Amino acid sequence: MDKVLGVLGGMGPLASAHFMVRLTLLTPAARDQDHLPAVLWSDPRVPDRTAARLRAGEDPLPALLCGVRGLEAAGAGAIAIPCNTAHGWYAEMQAATRLPILHIVDAAAAELRRLGVPEGRIGVMGTAATLAMRLYQERLGQLGYDCLVPSEAEMASRVTPAIAEVKANRVAEAYAPLAEVARALVVRGARAVVLGCTEIPLGIAAGPVLPFPVADTIDGLARASLRWAGY
Amino acid sequence: MDKVLGVLGGMGPLASAHFMVRLTLLTPAARDQDHLPAVLWSDPRVPDRTAARLRAGEDPLPALLCGVRGLEAAGAGAIAIPCNTAHGWYAEMQAATRLPILHIVDAAAAELRRLGVPEGRIGVMGTAATLAMRLYQERLGQLGYDCLVPSEAEMASRVTPAIAEVKANRVAEAYAPLAEVARALVVRGARAVVLGCTEIPLGIAAGPVLPFPVADTIDGLARASLRWAGY
Repeated sequence: MDKVLGVLGGMGPLASAHFMVRLTLLTPAARDQDHLPAVLWSDPRVPDRTAARLRAGEDPLPALLCGVRGLEAAGAGAIAIPCNTAHGWYAEMQAATRLPILHIVDAAAAELRRLGVPEGRIGVMGTAATLAMRLYQERLGQLGYDCLVPSEAEMASRVTPAIAEVKANRVAEAYAPLAEVARALVVRGARAVVLGCTEIPLGIAAGPVLPFPVADTIDGLARASLRWAGY
Repeated sequence: MDKVLGVLGGMGPLASAHFMVRLTLLTPAARDQDHLPAVLWSDPRVPDRTAARLRAGEDPLPALLCGVRGLEAAGAGAIAIPCNTAHGWYAEMQAATRLPILHIVDAAAAELRRLGVPEGRIGVMGTAATLAMRLYQERLGQLGYDCLVPSEAEMASRVTPAIAEVKANRVAEAYAPLAEVARALVVRGARAVVLGCTEIPLGIAAGPVLPFPVADTIDGLARASLRWAGY
């Protein structure tokens, strides 16, 4: 394997560390040397993406581009970013590098197809900024999906606090509120639910398996990375 | 936090990914920006350390030094290496960089003290090369520990195959043989057992908790890294 995957992470750090675990476990490998070389640039100092988009907080783009430069220098052949909200700056990052940046929403779409959901009504959970930027609604809409999102009340009382719990290492506490909102989306007609913030699959993994298809954007991006590498 | 931890990993890749998870979970943090910035250089192509030491296999030092250079260029302030066997090349790596390299055996000693085992007879499990190089026996011997190691038969039939299982992503299969050898060391008089190969705590975590103190060198190195960073 002469390809090196660059991982622009730290957003949050638990999600990108878990991405590295899943990337490894999803690789067909019999020994160390069969695995994919990777460099994880884990910079949790990147200014908060949601605050930047919704509350005119500090711009994360300079820190994101610093990470892109670091991964270029480290010899990466492509970049994966296990943070959905950071994809609000995808165009600016892609314009700034010759390396392909794997898009997490495309990875989620591939995950939905893998789960047997090629179109139709789906639920999308994510940060308030990801939903406000319509990252999923637009890109998946073009592929024939109709995206249901949580209500503002569900976001404020359940999803946003649960994401913050994971970032503060209180992962188990995040399960109940996230599972409740996922179930509510299915009751409203979703055939599957996209966990469109990389903290959300960590919380959802901390409790009983949900009885409907969930597209995990950590696993989806790991599979897209392995496809890029030719596994 | 203006420090950046460099992690020379990929040996194996699951162990270094799990190191990043534990580093994150052991950090007192309320939000992304409270976590420690880190760069993980995960290069599973590094030639097999055990084969190099015991069977005159390809020298891993050039690949290790390439990783050290990469971490220097990425702005690391110290280097942690979540692979015990690679510490057989510690002196050469430390001589080649101004960055401090945190020594995993010192981290294991700190972990033993944290577990209430400040001296005495302990068991040490590791690769055949780690034991043959006497990495633990010498360095812990100077601190007042008396190191019991598995027999050659236990190494050949239990420990070495279990380490290979983890590197091939068959983690659950590694529990029984590793737990059996750890128990045998306690029967022979060990007060605690050092899991002195970073694949071993992954296997041991896949089954019931052992009823004696075990010093996990992944957690120990993560705690040493956080102490270096001033957490």
